[in-house]
Formats: sequence, C-alpha cells, structure tokens
Amino acid sequence: MNRQEFFNIIKTKKSFLCIGLDSDISKIPKHLLNLDDPIFEFNKKIIDSTLDLAVAYKINTAFYESCGLKGWRSLEKTVDYLNKYKEQIFTIADAKRGDIGNTSKQYAKEFFDPNSSGLDFDAVTVNPYMGEDCITPFYSFKGKWVILLILTSNKGAYDFQFLQPQFHATLEKLGIKIRRDSNKKLFEQVMAKSYKWGGNENNTMFVIGANNAEIFSSIRNNFPEHFFLVPGVGAQGGNLLKVAKYGLNKQCGLLVNSSRKIIFASKGLDFAVKAKEQAIILQKQMERILKANNIL
Amino acid sequence: MNRQEFFNIIKTKKSFLCIGLDSDISKIPKHLLNLDDPIFEFNKKIIDSTLDLAVAYKINTAFYESCGLKGWRSLEKTVDYLNKYKEQIFTIADAKRGDIGNTSKQYAKEFFDPNSSGLDFDAVTVNPYMGEDCITPFYSFKGKWVILLILTSNKGAYDFQFLQPQFHATLEKLGIKIRRDSNKKLFEQVMAKSYKWGGNENNTMFVIGANNAEIFSSIRNNFPEHFFLVPGVGAQGGNLLKVAKYGLNKQCGLLVNSSRKIIFASKGLDFAVKAKEQAIILQKQMERILKANNIL
Repeated sequence: MNRQEFFNIIKTKKSFLCIGLDSDISKIPKHLLNLDDPIFEFNKKIIDSTLDLAVAYKINTAFYESCGLKGWRSLEKTVDYLNKYKEQIFTIADAKRGDIGNTSKQYAKEFFDPNSSGLDFDAVTVNPYMGEDCITPFYSFKGKWVILLILTSNKGAYDFQFLQPQFHATLEKLGIKIRRDSNKKLFEQVMAKSYKWGGNENNTMFVIGANNAEIFSSIRNNFPEHFFLVPGVGAQGGNLLKVAKYGLNKQCGLLVNSSRKIIFASKGLDFAVKAKEQAIILQKQMERILKANNIL
Repeated sequence: MNRQEFFNIIKTKKSFLCIGLDSDISKIPKHLLNLDDPIFEFNKKIIDSTLDLAVAYKINTAFYESCGLKGWRSLEKTVDYLNKYKEQIFTIADAKRGDIGNTSKQYAKEFFDPNSSGLDFDAVTVNPYMGEDCITPFYSFKGKWVILLILTSNKGAYDFQFLQPQFHATLEKLGIKIRRDSNKKLFEQVMAKSYKWGGNENNTMFVIGANNAEIFSSIRNNFPEHFFLVPGVGAQGGNLLKVAKYGLNKQCGLLVNSSRKIIFASKGLDFAVKAKEQAIILQKQMERILKANNIL
C-alpha cells in the first residue's frame, strides 16, 4: 500500500486508529476456548466489529509465537483474513526484528514474502540497534513499509534511548569517519541515521512512544513528512490530544495504536460489541481532531 | 543447565565451539529437498556428525520463521532432537527478541516454556535497546540463560554501539535521576546496566562480536566471570586465537560460534562429513588453546 492510498483510508474512515491484536490466549473470553482456533476466532470477531473504525491492525507476533505451531496457524489465518480487506486496512507485524544482513533478509521474507512464509504484511517493526546492514534487507520488498523503533513508551526507554552520545576516538582509530554531531540524544541519532537507510517518508514510519508527547514537537520539526506509529495510548497511558497536538502533519502523519483497552474491553459474550464501543470513542476523538486541523 | 554443568561439557569435549544452525533452505544440499522436512533432515545429520565436537548449538530462528508453518515444524523437531542430548549440549535460540514487559513475557514463553510453545531452549539472545523491563521477563524461568546483545560483528555495529553517551538534562527535567557516567561507549553502558537486570554470571552471557578482539581485553577486565558468546568466527572473519587471547577466563568463559563455514562446507552428499572436518579443525585449535591456558 502506498502513502496516498493509506491517507485515503484515513480520510474515508475519519480515523487514524491502529488496533493491536495482542491476542493473549489467557485473556480472551472463555467461551471461545472450546473452538478449534480460539485466537483466530477472537481476532475475526474483533476485526469484523472494528473494520470501519480502524485504518490499521498491528499483530504483536509474540502472542502467537508463544503458542508455538498452533499460534503460527492462528497468525497465518489472521493475516489471510485481514488481507481480504487489503484495500481498506494497513497491516503491521509488530515483531521488533533486526540482525546481521544475512539474517534480516530472512526476517524480511518472513513478513513480506507469502511464497516463502505464507504471510503478507504491509509493514514490519524493526530494531535499529545493530545498524544499517541489519535494516536495509527489509527495504528490498517494493510497496512494503519499514517501521523503525526509535522511542518507546515503556519505563526502560529511559535506560538508553535518552542517552546523549558523542562519537568516540575509537572510531577514528578504526579508520571510520563519521560526522560529529554530539548534541543529539540516542533516539535522535538513531532517527537521523536510520531514516536514510533505504527509506523515505513513503515507505518508512517511526515508532514514537506516546508518554513523551512534548518531545513530538521537536521530532515533528525534524521529520515533517513521516508517519509516526504511536503505541501507548490506552493501557500504556498516552494522551491522544497531546499526541495529536504535537504530532499531526498535513497528511495526518499519525497512526495511534490501542491494544488491550479495545480488544479486552469485555471478557464476556459481548467482547466484540464492547471492543467496538471503545474503538468508536477513539475514532470519534480522532474525527474531531482531523476536522479541527483541516485534514478532513 | 547450570554453569558448572556447562563447564564440565567444555572440559569433556575439549571444545568451546557453538555451531550455528542457520539452515537456509536455499543453501542446503539439493538431494535433501525431496524429503518431507529437508531442513530437519539436514540439521539432524549435522548434529549427528558434530555432537562430540560442539558444546552448543545456536538456532538462528529467522531461517525457520521465513519458511512459515513448515519452518516452525522444522524448528520444533530440531529442538526436540537436540534435547535428546540435553546433558551433552547447550541450546541457544538466536532470536534477538525484546519488547515491552507484557510482550517479552510472551517471547520468554516461546523459547523457555515447552507447555506453551513446544520449544525448550537453554538460552535466548535478547536486544536490550528498549531497557530493563523488556529483559527482566526472560529471567523468570529458572535454569535458563539470557544472552544480551552487546557488541555485534557486523559493519552496522559502528552506527550506534560505539557512541559515547552522556546523560542529558532531559532526564532531570523529567525527574529521573541517573548516575552520570559519561566516559563509556554505548555498548559499555548497555553492559554496565543490563547485566544487573536480574542476571549474574550464572545465568547471563554477552554477545561480543569477534571483529573487535582488542576490545575484549577491557570488557574481560570489567566482566571477569561472564561467558561471552562470540559470533563472527568463520564466515564473518573473526580470529579465534585473538579472541581467546583476550577473552578466556578460568572457566573458559567463551562460546565461539561458527555457522556457514561448518554447515555449508559442502553442498554435496558428503555435507555432514565435510561439516565434521571443519568442526574438528576448530575443536583441535580450541583444545590447544584450553591446554595452553591450563583450563584442561
């Protein structure tokens, strides 16, 4: 899916909501557990009830991998089901992958090459800690998006992402020349470098944690065009209005995720109805925001 | 497996070789492709022919995930097969996982809880970029090991891992107090913090890229007891003698990986024999090193 198509979906649905299918087998309604594939049945009902409200679905692969083969069957069926609505939704594998080039090439095949893996996502989240050659293989699939992990919404984000680095003489001893740029915090350094590793605003998004809405202002100034995938609204406590205030651009530029608050709104028979209610609350807020900013 | 048991295997086999099962379906011998599960059959023969030479096997999960359901079946069968020799080998899921706590808990279940996923590894590699709460869930499984990604052997390692960080006033503005410690490079900062996130030398290893053997000296000084998992010997060009010179400790403290150079030594009918020959070359070097350092 290209950027214009994605923006059209945002305008049509009056929403920039991404629903996270963190479909934990221990948290889904009990009445589903007797079915052959409870996770898929759960996802199917959540998707059916929120399809007109969400512009994207983000599959947190951990919740599927933890169930082994059975989980991968649920994953494959969910992706296939989402792809029935290919023109109406953007699909994200939230997998946080990244390894040496030879290995990242395999991860790219996993999420982008249905002939190899059976999976066909629009985008995958990647971890840039290991550097450029770990990310470029993901760009070899045309029409696919790479979502770079930059600033996360958890407590541990403060362990390293805010460090303010300076380039060290070691690099020079090793004969490697890098432009000195000592005022940026680590996550800013990561953004400033990684966005050029094969991508541009038409195939690259950034994960920007919603807990740091104030920081959005400077990030948005530096990257006026890119889409930001914002986790942490909902269960993780991010504030939608704040995020919108600092993060919106002319083509929306935001994709705000909510997982648990929507999909586990109820554990009863009415789980899909209650999920829809929660999604409507967010979609209505987003519609107001988009209108107030002349995007609709 | 505990540390003493692992050291006993090293002494028995006179080796600190880890064989990486990066079993790329496009590179395995063609005569295997007609079998029901070519990757598993390949792995089985490689394991059978190197079992007395390698103290550990490292499964690069990307090569299995890229084949989808079929790949996960091969992965499960390979882990089950390795676990037949549970007391003779240490098993590593080289998966480079890491996400917010709620998600990392699922990844831990994937690799450490056979009742959930069907997989039962001794250790998993994790990416510490997202901080403490992303790593601690992996420590909740007793008897299992966490291998922290610190310094890698690829070109991209120089993008961020060598940055020399300083803590920024932003943290203070946010009310977060962190000890100032501005002289360490990013990978050193990551080590200095992450080794305390639930682990110690009895359940934690570090990935230390073999391209930077000189750096081992200072790392070993700071961490005299921990095991280092060293990729990059073989196809990635690391030098075994150099690594041993700087990295050995009294209980060996090194686990040196070789993947492609061993498993793809031949693409013919003799692939297992040729793999064994390559493994013998490394094991013999390791035996000499262990004897020269009075570890045997």
